[in-house]
Amino acid sequence: MAKKDERAVTPRSEDYSQWYQDIVLKAELADYSPVKGCMVIRPHGYALWEEMQRALDGMFRETGHVNAYFPLFIPMSFLSREAEHVEGFAKECAVVTHHRLGAAPEGGVRPDPQSVLEEPLIVRPTSETIMYAMYAKWIKSYRDLPLLLNQWANVVRWEMRTRLFLRTTEFLWQEGHTAHATHEEAWEEVMRILAIYARFAEEWMAVPVVRGVKSESEKFAGALKTTCIEAMMQDGKALQAGTSHDLGQNFARAFEVKFQDEKGEWQYCWQTSWGVSTRLIGALIMAHSDDQGLVLPPRLARTQAVIVPIYRDDAGRARVLEAAAALEARLKDGGFGVVLDGRDTVSPGFKFNEWEMKGIPVRLEIGPRDVEQGVCLAVPRVETRPLQEGERRQKETLPLEGAPGALRILLDDLQKALFARALRFRDSRTFRLDDYGEFQERIEEGGFFLAPWCGSAACESRVKDETKATIRCIPFEGDREPGKCLVCGAPAEGRVVWARAY
Amino acid sequence: MAKKDERAVTPRSEDYSQWYQDIVLKAELADYSPVKGCMVIRPHGYALWEEMQRALDGMFRETGHVNAYFPLFIPMSFLSREAEHVEGFAKECAVVTHHRLGAAPEGGVRPDPQSVLEEPLIVRPTSETIMYAMYAKWIKSYRDLPLLLNQWANVVRWEMRTRLFLRTTEFLWQEGHTAHATHEEAWEEVMRILAIYARFAEEWMAVPVVRGVKSESEKFAGALKTTCIEAMMQDGKALQAGTSHDLGQNFARAFEVKFQDEKGEWQYCWQTSWGVSTRLIGALIMAHSDDQGLVLPPRLARTQAVIVPIYRDDAGRARVLEAAAALEARLKDGGFGVVLDGRDTVSPGFKFNEWEMKGIPVRLEIGPRDVEQGVCLAVPRVETRPLQEGERRQKETLPLEGAPGALRILLDDLQKALFARALRFRDSRTFRLDDYGEFQERIEEGGFFLAPWCGSAACESRVKDETKATIRCIPFEGDREPGKCLVCGAPAEGRVVWARAY
Repeated sequence: MAKKDERAVTPRSEDYSQWYQDIVLKAELADYSPVKGCMVIRPHGYALWEEMQRALDGMFRETGHVNAYFPLFIPMSFLSREAEHVEGFAKECAVVTHHRLGAAPEGGVRPDPQSVLEEPLIVRPTSETIMYAMYAKWIKSYRDLPLLLNQWANVVRWEMRTRLFLRTTEFLWQEGHTAHATHEEAWEEVMRILAIYARFAEEWMAVPVVRGVKSESEKFAGALKTTCIEAMMQDGKALQAGTSHDLGQNFARAFEVKFQDEKGEWQYCWQTSWGVSTRLIGALIMAHSDDQGLVLPPRLARTQAVIVPIYRDDAGRARVLEAAAALEARLKDGGFGVVLDGRDTVSPGFKFNEWEMKGIPVRLEIGPRDVEQGVCLAVPRVETRPLQEGERRQKETLPLEGAPGALRILLDDLQKALFARALRFRDSRTFRLDDYGEFQERIEEGGFFLAPWCGSAACESRVKDETKATIRCIPFEGDREPGKCLVCGAPAEGRVVWARAY
Repeated sequence: MAKKDERAVTPRSEDYSQWYQDIVLKAELADYSPVKGCMVIRPHGYALWEEMQRALDGMFRETGHVNAYFPLFIPMSFLSREAEHVEGFAKECAVVTHHRLGAAPEGGVRPDPQSVLEEPLIVRPTSETIMYAMYAKWIKSYRDLPLLLNQWANVVRWEMRTRLFLRTTEFLWQEGHTAHATHEEAWEEVMRILAIYARFAEEWMAVPVVRGVKSESEKFAGALKTTCIEAMMQDGKALQAGTSHDLGQNFARAFEVKFQDEKGEWQYCWQTSWGVSTRLIGALIMAHSDDQGLVLPPRLARTQAVIVPIYRDDAGRARVLEAAAALEARLKDGGFGVVLDGRDTVSPGFKFNEWEMKGIPVRLEIGPRDVEQGVCLAVPRVETRPLQEGERRQKETLPLEGAPGALRILLDDLQKALFARALRFRDSRTFRLDDYGEFQERIEEGGFFLAPWCGSAACESRVKDETKATIRCIPFEGDREPGKCLVCGAPAEGRVVWARAY
């Protein structure tokens, strides 16, 4: 029996869930921690998050938002002020009740009974309540509006079943919170942010998304309306990749967030909130990776290329390493993130596998003959063109002199190829359906199902109970032709997206 | 009686503590939150923190460190594994004991008694324990060393008496944690980081610092040795601005952080940890600000210059605003952070005060006559040269054409002037002393006192009880001439720095 390669991942076709976990662990993106439900984000995973932050933060700034930081703790009573909000979050809260440890009678330490807090504190699951208590203090006049704040922070939602990046008790995110003078302006903001999220998903992550509105039962606890972007993973399941909420005046009323308008009359503000989280890393992995490991889109890869020198003897080694170092310097000067893997302790093949596992977009191989010819071989992590006959893997010959320009083109091609591949996949798994029996059968294979819905929560809930599928969204650019509800046959205003989801 | 200007700060000479608080609030750096001991960092303060992060993160990266993220929660038992460590932190912990809220019998919500955690979780006061539990898993061989990780995160230490930025229950910081094969390498790391901290304080913050080692009683709980940088505030008190710890093998033994050396033998790792926090913002304020408000060193100011157009009539307005916009564009192209304050609702004088309060390094005034002459007037927040006779405020004439170059020079001069002023101040308040009676009197005025110390904890503790002063550090570049202890007269190896501290 062949010895199992400890470095290899479980094939995706064999066990999708194990495949995902293997990639997270073996690409060293994250690891399980000793704290139930909490993960450790390792440097390779954290660099990816930092690149995501950089791209998003730039877009938030361009549209007039500024960053701030609000407390980790929320007084328990704050959470209760908005009725739906507390309903939505009460069941998954980490609650701080003591502020000191003391000696335990049986030895060791315990929470000091003398240090019980008068009012328990909740570790923020989201920050509407604590932020809006401050907004109520800061906003006085229409001149203070719009208030456009964003926060990068950790949040905690107690989860019983967790999965690295996709569902963890603690996660990292950004949460934007804005206040406006009119509902119209607030809605514009909601849509402006959704457009930023969609652009980020498609142009940086290379993941196509459906934009739409959540049904009443799936919207954010306390919102008037939740808009979202939904992405398809390689098992055909949906993943909500970002949400932007129209909060109406719900929180403004609960927290007295008011302003004096130009006539001197007091009005409640119109508010929005919106967020994306480290969950996006899970989405990225599931959208592009394969049995060789992680696949990083070039625009989010801190290291875009790895140089692997190849030689047989000492003479070759010296020549090749010199050329490799020159190539590295030239690419770094060109603004690329490059690693030269000069290790002598492992073989080139070992290195190829390791860097493919980590998803580095392009490998540059350079041997003695390449040096003589003034070239190197560029191998993209995923093909950017159809393979020719007899070609096992796409290899492009790059001139050492003009390497930065040639690499730029290859990376751009790769970015486009990843998006195109993901889009093809999604299209091939998106179906129009009108029959509930057929739906119940085919939902097992995964995919997005465009089917009419009458708008009733009862039908939605029945589908969920019977098939585990939910309405992912009522798409903005969907088929709005009148039809008959998939479930009950009542008149439906158009088709919505049904799918099983992460 | 003159009406008190609500926008003005309490004079520093009148009430130093109130002056500090006024600046934090009126420059809109931070605000009090509804959660006891926790602050809200407002956009102007958070931008400053982001600039600090950028500078430090760059230096950490240049020296081979990478960022990662570890859980917010620490199992209570972990904290207890290193005896001194739990002793140091047990008294100021936020303790999570429940994971859900439920309906309270009297109405409202309460921590659900059914959701008590088996083991309480501590909100991290620092992350040695949770990180090293992972290091024990990851490190196997000398080839895995050194491990050089850093984390940007929030931490919580329950404080009874808090002060914005200087001492808050929650604060933001970075904590570096490294593991090495030898003690020598670990010590080199400790000193490498201390040098980065000192360079950051002096070259970015424009705050001179004393580098040294903490006494046994002031060192980090669990460390072998703590090195630090100490800065002097404008009231003559010391502020610890950063610490870098040699942890020896204390935590490695407690958490089994071991590696196989080249001979295949298992060895405990040698570790370091080091951190700076949002406290640095407090230090920055106290080091440079004045009765007009905050003073930002140019290298940490996101907005380096504000353009204030000055005009009397509509014709002038159009001409001046056009020139101001052109100046703004030219400076932005030059890479400067610039704001053009075109508000019509307030006077130029109001604007001057507001931007001075916020500490913007340079104000650029531009009026109709300036436009004609192709110039603007640059007013640095703090003088960069002695004032001439009859000059009330330094004003430099800048050509509009060459504005970026001229502004660059003025900002560099300002950066240097702030450091020089802080250094002069510190030197004027640093005293050599040998007599305890004199020390007891003069400590009241504040300042750094260089006095011999015999090395005993008893003398140190007596001074603290009698004068509230502590040993800030045993300076690396101090007077090591033998002398007699300030307190007991016993032989002393040299002079240490005594001061009252924040």
